[in-house]
Amino acid sequence: MTDKAPGITADESEIRQIFEQWSQAVRNKNLGAILAHHHSDFLMFDVPPPFLSRGIPAYVETWNLFFSMAPIPVKFDFDQLEIHASADVAFLTAIGHCRDTEPNGQIAPLDFRLTMGLRKIDGQWIIVHEHHSVPAAS
Amino acid sequence: MTDKAPGITADESEIRQIFEQWSQAVRNKNLGAILAHHHSDFLMFDVPPPFLSRGIPAYVETWNLFFSMAPIPVKFDFDQLEIHASADVAFLTAIGHCRDTEPNGQIAPLDFRLTMGLRKIDGQWIIVHEHHSVPAAS
Repeated sequence: MTDKAPGITADESEIRQIFEQWSQAVRNKNLGAILAHHHSDFLMFDVPPPFLSRGIPAYVETWNLFFSMAPIPVKFDFDQLEIHASADVAFLTAIGHCRDTEPNGQIAPLDFRLTMGLRKIDGQWIIVHEHHSVPAAS
Repeated sequence: MTDKAPGITADESEIRQIFEQWSQAVRNKNLGAILAHHHSDFLMFDVPPPFLSRGIPAYVETWNLFFSMAPIPVKFDFDQLEIHASADVAFLTAIGHCRDTEPNGQIAPLDFRLTMGLRKIDGQWIIVHEHHSVPAAS
């Protein structure tokens, strides 16, 4: 017996668990838990500016900005999760759903695209890259 | 003697070569060469809408749109390339530089973020995902 779904590798299960803990930590506004599996040289491409953020302090700033705009309770849900994992490098794609506060104060749904890159370092999966975006205004 | 840089694995060299062939193919407007290493179930998150594109015919549409807006000669250059490769899964990040034609007809530089995901299938690296974006307007 196993608690893994058929065809899902142990690495895929670990990555899914890290991903779900991370998104839950965002919903909980728990910054320590958000950062629990991130690399010190982490590279962020976020929805709003700046163009890129490098390292944990800059990553924290992106969450401070997000939480300043996110209505309570924080919505940060995903579907269409696809995990591509080898023994020590992995990436995943997903579609995210959150909410934004517009300049007029109205709350609006905001869907975004997410790509996340991971490496296994000393036996632990670590998030080294996130790319969050929306399409450019046409 | 070797033609690889010190510390670069054979997989990283192969992925760099595929990446450089792909970006050269864009500069050459050579659609066949752009598609030379893409998976049939390829997932695209592009700069302009649509929100996502799945499969090769939809990917071709994103290039038709790009070429309709790109001044000649086509600029499609990258720097800050970082490759994370294992034996059969890899991703890379890079900063791209192209040009856009604005509604008033003026040509403007456009910088964008790129994440690309690859899998090795039957001994060949295949591109299964691209995520191109610019930060949302603030």
